[in-house]
Amino acid sequence: MNIAVAQSGGPTCAINSSLAGVIKQAFEEEKIDIVYGSKNGIEGIIGQNLVVCQDVFKTDEDFDILKQTPSSALGSCRFKLPDYKVDEMPYKKIMDCFEKYKIEAFFYIGGNDSMDTIVKLSEYFSAKGSDIRFVGVPKTIDNDLVETDHTPGFGSAAKYVLTTVNEIIRDTNVYDLKSVLIVEIMGRQAGWLTASTSLLRLNGETKPQLIYLPEADFKVEKFVSDIKNEFQKDNVVIVAVSEGIEVDEIEQDELSATDGFGHKNLGGIGKRLENIVKSSIGCKVRSVELNVLQRCASHCASLTDITEAENAGKNAVIKMLEGHSGVMVSIKRVSDEPYEVTYDVVDAKMVANNEKPFNKEWITKEQNNVTDDAIKYFLPLIQGEVSTKTQNGIPKHFIIK
Amino acid sequence: MNIAVAQSGGPTCAINSSLAGVIKQAFEEEKIDIVYGSKNGIEGIIGQNLVVCQDVFKTDEDFDILKQTPSSALGSCRFKLPDYKVDEMPYKKIMDCFEKYKIEAFFYIGGNDSMDTIVKLSEYFSAKGSDIRFVGVPKTIDNDLVETDHTPGFGSAAKYVLTTVNEIIRDTNVYDLKSVLIVEIMGRQAGWLTASTSLLRLNGETKPQLIYLPEADFKVEKFVSDIKNEFQKDNVVIVAVSEGIEVDEIEQDELSATDGFGHKNLGGIGKRLENIVKSSIGCKVRSVELNVLQRCASHCASLTDITEAENAGKNAVIKMLEGHSGVMVSIKRVSDEPYEVTYDVVDAKMVANNEKPFNKEWITKEQNNVTDDAIKYFLPLIQGEVSTKTQNGIPKHFIIK
Repeated sequence: MNIAVAQSGGPTCAINSSLAGVIKQAFEEEKIDIVYGSKNGIEGIIGQNLVVCQDVFKTDEDFDILKQTPSSALGSCRFKLPDYKVDEMPYKKIMDCFEKYKIEAFFYIGGNDSMDTIVKLSEYFSAKGSDIRFVGVPKTIDNDLVETDHTPGFGSAAKYVLTTVNEIIRDTNVYDLKSVLIVEIMGRQAGWLTASTSLLRLNGETKPQLIYLPEADFKVEKFVSDIKNEFQKDNVVIVAVSEGIEVDEIEQDELSATDGFGHKNLGGIGKRLENIVKSSIGCKVRSVELNVLQRCASHCASLTDITEAENAGKNAVIKMLEGHSGVMVSIKRVSDEPYEVTYDVVDAKMVANNEKPFNKEWITKEQNNVTDDAIKYFLPLIQGEVSTKTQNGIPKHFIIK
Repeated sequence: MNIAVAQSGGPTCAINSSLAGVIKQAFEEEKIDIVYGSKNGIEGIIGQNLVVCQDVFKTDEDFDILKQTPSSALGSCRFKLPDYKVDEMPYKKIMDCFEKYKIEAFFYIGGNDSMDTIVKLSEYFSAKGSDIRFVGVPKTIDNDLVETDHTPGFGSAAKYVLTTVNEIIRDTNVYDLKSVLIVEIMGRQAGWLTASTSLLRLNGETKPQLIYLPEADFKVEKFVSDIKNEFQKDNVVIVAVSEGIEVDEIEQDELSATDGFGHKNLGGIGKRLENIVKSSIGCKVRSVELNVLQRCASHCASLTDITEAENAGKNAVIKMLEGHSGVMVSIKRVSDEPYEVTYDVVDAKMVANNEKPFNKEWITKEQNNVTDDAIKYFLPLIQGEVSTKTQNGIPKHFIIK
């Protein structure tokens, strides 16, 4: 049988490790012949834009370099399949491609939108009497997929965020004056990544003193009093804030200062909170937006995450050969110490278009930090460093032309 | 004899390695007794806020951890000494401190403002008939000190910027649509750090296609046509821009905040260029400000830089004992291949309040990129990776209470 694999959604440091896992496992399976890589997610199937993985990946080193390459080596897309009862055209094109290339299984590495694609395709092909199998491999830095203990890509993003926030703390501590530094961290709906900064406590850090998540209550007035309160204890206050916190109470006028061209400068929440500190407290304040760096900083990946991402990819192939379809590979945590996980499958329908918020029980009563239970959950996910191959002093990347 | 060491100016990844160099060398010298660390630069001398380094640093591992700690372990300041003929008070306090603690040599690790302090102190004490010696150790991520081939701190910042921009390129390449990504890089007057992104060419990268430096001509109209021109060749255009490019055509009203030295607190050019692309081209566009991360990302330091920074510190002690004062340690490049440097001293007066712009001969005729000669200069400075000790998966830092 031939198979195809594709990647979708936003980049992570681990999505190429899952790709490596799928391909490496497929190369080992006698039942599998050609492994096709679909460019730009499902669009590569629809447009028959495929590469033959046997031609692309020749050596173990190729896979090692692929695993240390951030973002999606096969490209990505944001294409959402329509309901086939409304518009069957994309489905017909997908079927054409599968027939032409004799593809009998399709693997989609992505987040909940990709799992929606897995659900729709498995339902459509099943309705047509086809036994082509569809398996999803989880991926997102947001860690917001349900039915899995955590998500490949999250551990590396958390390790980078933690490492960086720790460095920012050193940077901010140098001057002996009252100052606030606000770090804006990705997470539109879910605060997992921002909450992971709490791990610095294990190393004796008292910072960030304030952690604001989308799942907690946020009031501007309380934010200002939180900062003033922290100034009683320390000259330097570090704030970690999710980009997606609820900010109903902030005056829109204040939030949309214009630049020199008259454009509305719709900065992120970090910039907005910076302005609030400036106007209400008046001390030195700076905001740092970690931006795309937190989802692509492979040079600071978590070995645990990269290993699990590859294992998730391998398990997708194994589960498919066992006959599963319409499923997503799921990570089950067996124990914290020693940390141990197993891989299972869950119905992709449970995952698609669903989101797992940060555990509300782990948010402190003051709504501005997280409890030690959260730290216990995060700790194993960021362990281990990846040994990176460099060229001219810069990490090597694997490029698929 | 007793000596004192202090750190000043903006943080870097290498300033603690220079501190380690001064202290380690001093510990080895029989002539040197107590090594004092002055908290928050020269302010620690004025306010007699000192630590005894013999009490703080006990083991080789202490120095290893210090070297992998970003920013200034002793704290920093932005204090500018007045002319002693106008205001002698700070000088008298410094003399009091030196007398009380029997300090006969003072080492200041910092940029050109710190060298200004070295000049003023050596002139004052010399005028008073004192033979206390003053030696500067260079430090700045901007690489803009004169009389030295390059500056400790620059190589690590460049390695981080290069590594990160390379990752951003992967991140931006995933979608198959026209997009511009602008990376704003530190450098108020000097474009060295931004120019270093050209090194990616050695690894076969075509990006960033456009590099804008403060030393080159910049016109908004030309910038827009540069982008349009690049779109003829590639769907994805990556722009590296120095925070301090000359932007006559852009309103600068909101960039008026200044630090203690009257430096304009620049920033925001990336966002402004983003708005220009949005309004004049209308494609997908994003700007990323590397912000303080580029000066404190010790987890991605250059081994060459960290080693040279330590050697510069060691040489400061050696040169002081040879009788030098009013000088700064300088790095001389002996050869590119194999890369070799020596350490010398230069008159601190030559360095103080002076700036070394990026070499104009290395700017392309189009004013939007740099030549291969620049690459040859940068290449050795970013070589080698530091092996980092971690605790709970996060790099360990050395904290002086």
